[in-house]
Amino acid sequence: MANTDYQLIILGGGPAGLTAGLYAARDQLNVLLVEKGVVGGQVLVTDWIDNYPGFPDGLSGSELVEKMAAQVARFGLKTRNGNVVKVELTEATKKLTLESGEELTSQALIICTGARPNKLGIPGEEKLTGKGVSYCATCDGPFFRDQEILVVGGGDTAVQEADFLTKFASKVTIVHRRDTLRATKVLQEKAFANKRIEFIWNSNVIAVEGEKEVERVRLRNIDGEEKEIAASGIFILIGTIPNNEILPLKQLGADKQGFIKTDGEMRTKIPGVMAAGDIRSKTVRQVINGAGEGAVAAIAAEHYLSDLD
Amino acid sequence: MANTDYQLIILGGGPAGLTAGLYAARDQLNVLLVEKGVVGGQVLVTDWIDNYPGFPDGLSGSELVEKMAAQVARFGLKTRNGNVVKVELTEATKKLTLESGEELTSQALIICTGARPNKLGIPGEEKLTGKGVSYCATCDGPFFRDQEILVVGGGDTAVQEADFLTKFASKVTIVHRRDTLRATKVLQEKAFANKRIEFIWNSNVIAVEGEKEVERVRLRNIDGEEKEIAASGIFILIGTIPNNEILPLKQLGADKQGFIKTDGEMRTKIPGVMAAGDIRSKTVRQVINGAGEGAVAAIAAEHYLSDLD
Repeated sequence: MANTDYQLIILGGGPAGLTAGLYAARDQLNVLLVEKGVVGGQVLVTDWIDNYPGFPDGLSGSELVEKMAAQVARFGLKTRNGNVVKVELTEATKKLTLESGEELTSQALIICTGARPNKLGIPGEEKLTGKGVSYCATCDGPFFRDQEILVVGGGDTAVQEADFLTKFASKVTIVHRRDTLRATKVLQEKAFANKRIEFIWNSNVIAVEGEKEVERVRLRNIDGEEKEIAASGIFILIGTIPNNEILPLKQLGADKQGFIKTDGEMRTKIPGVMAAGDIRSKTVRQVINGAGEGAVAAIAAEHYLSDLD
Repeated sequence: MANTDYQLIILGGGPAGLTAGLYAARDQLNVLLVEKGVVGGQVLVTDWIDNYPGFPDGLSGSELVEKMAAQVARFGLKTRNGNVVKVELTEATKKLTLESGEELTSQALIICTGARPNKLGIPGEEKLTGKGVSYCATCDGPFFRDQEILVVGGGDTAVQEADFLTKFASKVTIVHRRDTLRATKVLQEKAFANKRIEFIWNSNVIAVEGEKEVERVRLRNIDGEEKEIAASGIFILIGTIPNNEILPLKQLGADKQGFIKTDGEMRTKIPGVMAAGDIRSKTVRQVINGAGEGAVAAIAAEHYLSDLD
């Protein structure tokens, strides 16, 4: 057996990483979870989750994370805070280098670094996230029943989700910075035919405003004219960015957007290296399937380690 | 749009089916969940679940099902009891026929019929399931710390899991009805080298005994001699059977064991037909990844239905 600090390191402490940690710690692996910030990932900024099975009345993202963290602690999972700046996977021993220069080695690695939504970076956006500002239609759409909302973006996701959101909202206005959509023709045609969808072209959202929740947004068009629109929600659907900056993508195998490809057992192209959760190349990014993938990745890691013995 | 009773039918009410139902009902689809018995599936007979993320102290299988059922009810999911005897998927309209002769039609179908462990069918086995009798090492292994347990079987799963179980148990005795193992050579060698594993050859377990929990098992060898062995646990690992009896396997695409193959979005070979949970061809069958697959399948169904409009 190689002489490493750990059998398994889990990189990232969102739902996928915590679930991988739960399985690995419960199965007595010598495992460490490394998290850059606080455990929880994207879920932490999620105001309310109605679709994680097992909680009939829903719960806040921070409550769910707290419960998951308590569970892994019960099984003795070691976690540590650390900003990994380098990931070396060419040898049998996987090596992570922290900002401090400290090195951590392991025989197997599960990558759960997640992804983040592209943001507009405008006043009010951060303050009102979860209070009307959303980056996920599947997650938050049902909260906007009979309300008037905005969608920002012109790609496939924005146009498809605008159509989806008309199941709930009384009116959906797509705000796009150009005068044509980038979405595929069939999605465009569906949106144009949907009477609950309106369009505002050649315009940028420059501010989100509201006391405790979103009340209105400010727009500016290409002629520099500004106007205000009343809205109780704004879905910013302008892309998702994988947290892959420190990862050797070519070796791991990634799609065009930089998400990591795996097989059904969450294994990457590199033996002993798995990926789970939002960093994976896939279409659905929800807490429940991220957690499920964490469990599968942990079991794949166990089988890998068991074969090394 | 085709003239069907429902947009979507979900066949089976275990964690995968309930999660698919949660997503579909929350997203306002006209959806029905059909379950043969009571909702919950295999989980219902699970005494205690420690590895479903979000419940730090664990919970019983029936508690988890109750919570999931309350959650889908909150979003108005229609469920009905019905023994489906025929599944027709050749036309755009999917048709299910119940034992009563009644027909149910839909545009899309999610198959979550699950799987069941092969059982020995011996006295005491059913009564003591969850009280020392287990069919899943990953699920229940950690409950047997420092105890002496038995594993029944001689295939890959039995031999690999026997090795895994020595992480917890002080002694694992493999009882096999033949004098050689069917498992691959490398797994066999590992088991033979493991000092905590013992073997009893040419023997069948004929009874599991104990007042409230497993206390001992009765064995009979090929010469007809019987003996008793003290044990607090018995893992019966002699295969998993897909609940596929009513499914058109060739059309759907299945592996050699009869589990349904899907892509990463849970789509089968038949447009509009998804599969999720234990019925899928895969290696890990846990509640958390079954639920995750249910969510992915529901979103795939929505996209399929949206393209039909």
